[in-house]
Amino acid sequence: MKTQEMLQKLKELEQIQYAYQYAMGVTSFDGNTVAPKNSYKARGQAMSVLSGETYKKFINNEVKELLYGLQEKKKELDFVSNRKVEKYIEEYEKISKIPIKEFMEFTKLRNESNHSWEQAKTNDDFDSFAPYLTKIIEFNKRFANYRKPEKKAYDVLLDDFEKGMEMDDIDKFFEQLKKDVVPSIKEVVSKSAKIRDDFLNRKFPIDKQKELSYILTDLLNMNRDDYTIGESEHPFTMGLNNNDVRFTTHYYGNQIASSFYSTMHEAGHAIYGLNSDEKLNTTVLAGGASNGIHESQSRFYENLIGRSKEFIQYVFPTMKKLFPEQLGDVTALEFYLAVNKPKTSLIRIEADELTYSLHIMVRYEIERMMFEGDVNVKDLPAIWNKKYEEYLGIIPPNNTQGILQDVHWGFGMMGYFPSYALGSAYASQFLAKMKETIKFDSEVAKGDFTKINLWLKENIQTHGAIYTPKQLIMKTCGEEFNPAYYADYLNDKFKAL
Amino acid sequence: MKTQEMLQKLKELEQIQYAYQYAMGVTSFDGNTVAPKNSYKARGQAMSVLSGETYKKFINNEVKELLYGLQEKKKELDFVSNRKVEKYIEEYEKISKIPIKEFMEFTKLRNESNHSWEQAKTNDDFDSFAPYLTKIIEFNKRFANYRKPEKKAYDVLLDDFEKGMEMDDIDKFFEQLKKDVVPSIKEVVSKSAKIRDDFLNRKFPIDKQKELSYILTDLLNMNRDDYTIGESEHPFTMGLNNNDVRFTTHYYGNQIASSFYSTMHEAGHAIYGLNSDEKLNTTVLAGGASNGIHESQSRFYENLIGRSKEFIQYVFPTMKKLFPEQLGDVTALEFYLAVNKPKTSLIRIEADELTYSLHIMVRYEIERMMFEGDVNVKDLPAIWNKKYEEYLGIIPPNNTQGILQDVHWGFGMMGYFPSYALGSAYASQFLAKMKETIKFDSEVAKGDFTKINLWLKENIQTHGAIYTPKQLIMKTCGEEFNPAYYADYLNDKFKAL
Repeated sequence: MKTQEMLQKLKELEQIQYAYQYAMGVTSFDGNTVAPKNSYKARGQAMSVLSGETYKKFINNEVKELLYGLQEKKKELDFVSNRKVEKYIEEYEKISKIPIKEFMEFTKLRNESNHSWEQAKTNDDFDSFAPYLTKIIEFNKRFANYRKPEKKAYDVLLDDFEKGMEMDDIDKFFEQLKKDVVPSIKEVVSKSAKIRDDFLNRKFPIDKQKELSYILTDLLNMNRDDYTIGESEHPFTMGLNNNDVRFTTHYYGNQIASSFYSTMHEAGHAIYGLNSDEKLNTTVLAGGASNGIHESQSRFYENLIGRSKEFIQYVFPTMKKLFPEQLGDVTALEFYLAVNKPKTSLIRIEADELTYSLHIMVRYEIERMMFEGDVNVKDLPAIWNKKYEEYLGIIPPNNTQGILQDVHWGFGMMGYFPSYALGSAYASQFLAKMKETIKFDSEVAKGDFTKINLWLKENIQTHGAIYTPKQLIMKTCGEEFNPAYYADYLNDKFKAL
Repeated sequence: MKTQEMLQKLKELEQIQYAYQYAMGVTSFDGNTVAPKNSYKARGQAMSVLSGETYKKFINNEVKELLYGLQEKKKELDFVSNRKVEKYIEEYEKISKIPIKEFMEFTKLRNESNHSWEQAKTNDDFDSFAPYLTKIIEFNKRFANYRKPEKKAYDVLLDDFEKGMEMDDIDKFFEQLKKDVVPSIKEVVSKSAKIRDDFLNRKFPIDKQKELSYILTDLLNMNRDDYTIGESEHPFTMGLNNNDVRFTTHYYGNQIASSFYSTMHEAGHAIYGLNSDEKLNTTVLAGGASNGIHESQSRFYENLIGRSKEFIQYVFPTMKKLFPEQLGDVTALEFYLAVNKPKTSLIRIEADELTYSLHIMVRYEIERMMFEGDVNVKDLPAIWNKKYEEYLGIIPPNNTQGILQDVHWGFGMMGYFPSYALGSAYASQFLAKMKETIKFDSEVAKGDFTKINLWLKENIQTHGAIYTPKQLIMKTCGEEFNPAYYADYLNDKFKAL
């Protein structure tokens, strides 16, 4: 086949893949937002058929020959086409090296295990979940070994979620935090205890909170014709293409910070999802470089912008107008301090900026033990609690608020957690670079996001999945990933509180 | 192949078809409700690929052999399996007898023609739309001839939307209305002119109207876990399976009757969509016998229940509590009269119960001329206006409020309109039968829908598409479709106003 024909075939493959992904993405978004509760029954049936169809459309000899054929013609292809082929081959090898029978078994196990985790969390019963967790670890080890027998299993998993990152990188990252951030946490937390934050839990009418969400996204210059804000139990973003991104938030009648900051966070993911270069739109290279880089954008908008003094000073008068009774006696500075108050807490998703990465560190070290060490699954709750005592100074009173709190392991995902912490660290490094050319603080203080958005778009978002995280950081910052920026940012911010 | 194997293959075909329909149904619902405005761009691309995939999954030799093979084994199959095979063969012949090239051309024409109609309606410019309308008629004629050359083209189209109904049936139906209803309309309308209805256009807060929607569906005993109420420009229902139906309404801040009655109407469609027998759920026989029978259920809830004196008397105290300022000075009887006030109007979708069918009659007679007569498309606006003058006593001042008002023709749908009027007539006949065993008025007056729902479920809804409309009416009512019930219902109700 001629190269042009092959490229045409690649385009057809992309269009087919995109169509299925779009339909399954919308169906999943719908299922998590507006679909009636009992819809899960027949949706499962439909989704499982469509997954099978998608599998068959991709894992077959025709596609295989096309992809490896194009790989051989590397020199004739442009940069973007080569990256598409590489990305598809990665996907192809990831799926096709696992025997289909075991892949189906794992899918089944994940569903059962997820259900078992839900029960176990509700009943504070780790032992009932332990056999599933054991099997999940075994499957992950086995699959990693099928796929890349030359690599350590946990490195294979880390690479799935954060391409190019291995244990060595993550270790260095956490070592830096242990050295530069952990030592001061106790003091910062105890000094902050007197910060007033009671007003965050007053009654905030939900319709006004909804208005606030759109005030925030308007302020960030998002085009209302390109996104929609839904509601769901856990906030998430579904990026479908450059004109179609949906994110959700959760409104609580007695909290203001929760939906405020999940809107800012998800808006960051959404902006990323809308900003791929047009030639990458709806292709395999759209939608972001990695979990960690995605998280860098959400954390950028949530924390570096949203929890900055300048932003709160800019937006607080509007909030007071929306909530005159609730915030009438509060100053912008008090609000700033309240939403930044560091606390040593048990629950990751409620953690403040300062302590967040320590929650991740606990999970990373335990995952590392699962794959590298010789640990017995039954001992994990005790290990978890000991690490919380060591890093955060508190001991979970039960496993529901301890090792059972997160959905990931029950759902079969291991190696995912580090990307959360990496995202925050990447964001700090990007900010430092941005500040070389943009007066970040004063732009935020003016409520003008034109330059900031453009910088993030041109340096990060427009590239989609063209570069690996490491390549992208090097290209954007002119140096390797360096966690010192993050440590400095945290120290500067929290010591000054 | 053995019969059991073939039935297994049929089941697989059903599951595949269902999965694609589910995903495309959800995507379409999403597109009409929560999707961002600009999502249409890439949704079109994805939907077109998926339509092609669905086509290929169905129109192929394997499916053909399976279906016709099963047809030959008719005697070995149970009743439901035979009906499935018949239904699939109908679909198969409908699609496969049209050359794929022309089918694609027609799809393209429909999109362009729909766009042209929108422009023409906006600009009151029938002439710019006329060439498209001409082509739409030609395509419909040609396709009908490919499919069933032995039948008249318009009968083929009528049969698509209302199986078993031909011009003879529809003619008889409208003759009865002309004889029994039309003569008294002028008098009824003029007598009703003094009915007060100004309060329907007061300011009704939308959040309260939303509450009212759920009060109504709760009252009808609908299970909130099985349906969801969305919002869209034009209300519609998307029935996906026995646990997943979505309907929409449109809330206007200065109207109460619009969302009230579209909720009642769509709830009727939704209840039908949730009530197929379990063994028909997610199969080709789920979801309703025909457009007309579906409309009989929506009109039943909207009009026979919702616009009855008993229902309004039951629900009005609740409405007064919701809208104390707006309805404080209104009695239930006044509300009843206002929402039933007959008016000769120009717009079909705003018509009252009495005059609604006359709007349909105009469209039916014109469609009949398009296919049976020798009419010139350019003359249609004048013909339209003349018929409005004759049946309704008013002349449209322009084509926007005349022949250009409906979406159907521009979108290529001809033969669809009669099912709207038939639905109302079927509903009256079902009501007469129901009243033989159920004290309808007093059940409604008590706000108890247990018996009424059960009757409709057992006699109509549970059967899905097992019977044709004619068969279902015969089975349920013990006689043929008889429009006299409808004429009597209208005369009794409106003469007593």
